[in-house]
Amino acid sequence: MQLVTLDEIYDAATRIAGVAVRTPLLASPWPGLWLKPEGLQPIGAFKIRGAMTAMSRLDPELRARGVLAHSSGNHAQAVAYAAREFGVDAHIVIPDNAPDLKVAATRALGATVELVPVEQRFSRPAELAAETGKAMIAPFDDRNVIAGQGTIGLEIAQDWTGPSPLRTVLVPVSGGGLVSGIAAALAALMPDVAVIGVEPELAGDAADSFRSGERKAWKPADTARTIADGLRTFTVGELPWEHIRAQVADIITVTEDEIIDSTRRLALQARLVAEPSGAVATAAWLHHRAQLADGNAVAIVSGGNIDPAVLRRVLDA
Amino acid sequence: MQLVTLDEIYDAATRIAGVAVRTPLLASPWPGLWLKPEGLQPIGAFKIRGAMTAMSRLDPELRARGVLAHSSGNHAQAVAYAAREFGVDAHIVIPDNAPDLKVAATRALGATVELVPVEQRFSRPAELAAETGKAMIAPFDDRNVIAGQGTIGLEIAQDWTGPSPLRTVLVPVSGGGLVSGIAAALAALMPDVAVIGVEPELAGDAADSFRSGERKAWKPADTARTIADGLRTFTVGELPWEHIRAQVADIITVTEDEIIDSTRRLALQARLVAEPSGAVATAAWLHHRAQLADGNAVAIVSGGNIDPAVLRRVLDA
Repeated sequence: MQLVTLDEIYDAATRIAGVAVRTPLLASPWPGLWLKPEGLQPIGAFKIRGAMTAMSRLDPELRARGVLAHSSGNHAQAVAYAAREFGVDAHIVIPDNAPDLKVAATRALGATVELVPVEQRFSRPAELAAETGKAMIAPFDDRNVIAGQGTIGLEIAQDWTGPSPLRTVLVPVSGGGLVSGIAAALAALMPDVAVIGVEPELAGDAADSFRSGERKAWKPADTARTIADGLRTFTVGELPWEHIRAQVADIITVTEDEIIDSTRRLALQARLVAEPSGAVATAAWLHHRAQLADGNAVAIVSGGNIDPAVLRRVLDA
Repeated sequence: MQLVTLDEIYDAATRIAGVAVRTPLLASPWPGLWLKPEGLQPIGAFKIRGAMTAMSRLDPELRARGVLAHSSGNHAQAVAYAAREFGVDAHIVIPDNAPDLKVAATRALGATVELVPVEQRFSRPAELAAETGKAMIAPFDDRNVIAGQGTIGLEIAQDWTGPSPLRTVLVPVSGGGLVSGIAAALAALMPDVAVIGVEPELAGDAADSFRSGERKAWKPADTARTIADGLRTFTVGELPWEHIRAQVADIITVTEDEIIDSTRRLALQARLVAEPSGAVATAAWLHHRAQLADGNAVAIVSGGNIDPAVLRRVLDA
């Protein structure tokens, strides 16, 4: 399987320009750590980059029929937003245990939302694709989506002006699209930087896979335990797995308490509202320094779509 | 009194580069409104722009002696941060009723903090200036500080790519340095844009002055009533007043409930932690549309240094 190339990432950058925000690289309140605040994207998460890239590369006639997607979270909003940009319909299948906030936000963007029982979350979209001939925008296991997420790596390489070399980039891992894109960009542009994936301990399938050398799947009931609702995917994708094996230096895990602490400190000290999934990379830096190389790091704060009740709980922790 | 010029603002932009964040212009969740998120600055507020500019323009020998400032809030942190950048001492006089958070943050940046009774907040710094010969970095009534804050206007003019013309820029007003700088930049670069100041109703001295045509001072005990602790200054400065009269289209006021509502919606919907003072411009747009021209607006979210207890209270509102 051919890895995503730097050329594909440069191409993606031209396709997302003017829709995705070119987020700044922020010095954090914690010396040595910089933050890439993807919660500032229009839909509150990095997913807009991949969805726009994939939509943009569709054949225009196919795209005009409308698109399909399945997601329990930010990918749904990203596809809905991108579809609206192109003036086409989006039909999104969402499992009925998804956070209300994310369902409502997807509907508000004009998408048709179909709630299905969790066990139908893959079969129903496949059925729809067969019936309608519409294109499916995949959440992570797709080279255009990976190239789109990779624009974050491109921007880090362009914007790094720290006082000494960048050593580490910390990236949340769920299906692996984000870490793959960033690793692909930095393998070409900053080959001395270690790209490190971060997962909740309770949804540590990618760390497990990395350590064992083979792609593992966890039980969905197990990965569902973490507060980080965006990182409950129970296995990384096939193409992401190839990137992880070739270009990712390590995958480390963080605890629920560390995620909550980091979400709180991002809000109160860095003034960024992060969802728990968006805080895991920061948690790795705040709580697992011994596992990282000395020197400067960037943490991707991947999204900010947090339920108000969860934010209150986090602030009270 | 000569107004601050565009050339001075361009000069300031070169002096703050690499220290202040070039904040993005973000499409807000509310169609037609864009946000300039100054809470993303290293000290969590726009004040770093003016403080860096003023410090940078000091005679190097004078600067090497260290600098003085007085502030109850974000200006203190800005001067402390800028002094650290230049490797010189900062002695900051802070009234003893200032928020603990801001005092601690100023100390954490290495400044010497002297807490004084509120009535000595101007006399003590003057005494120190006379005794030590150190330069005072003024919070707002200073053309270099105004030029620094004006870089926000410059960036808005450079970054505006909205689908139709920008009509309005909404700016929090306390001493008036921020609104003056932005108005000076936009009077030159986007003369059709209305720059509108926003104040809490409970600290509405600038709106009062604007309506009456003469600079008024309110009682400090009155302006102290607002939750927006950064906007309790009881009169605008002399040079800011000249800018306001010449270049500001209007000054409007918002209620405490509107400020709290907007702080909450910025956190939950725009994923930005704003302090109440930082939310007043957004409050004007969310609650006073009838007072604004139709069409696109930018609101300056001027800072994010909110007390954790206040943030919790706002989220519960």
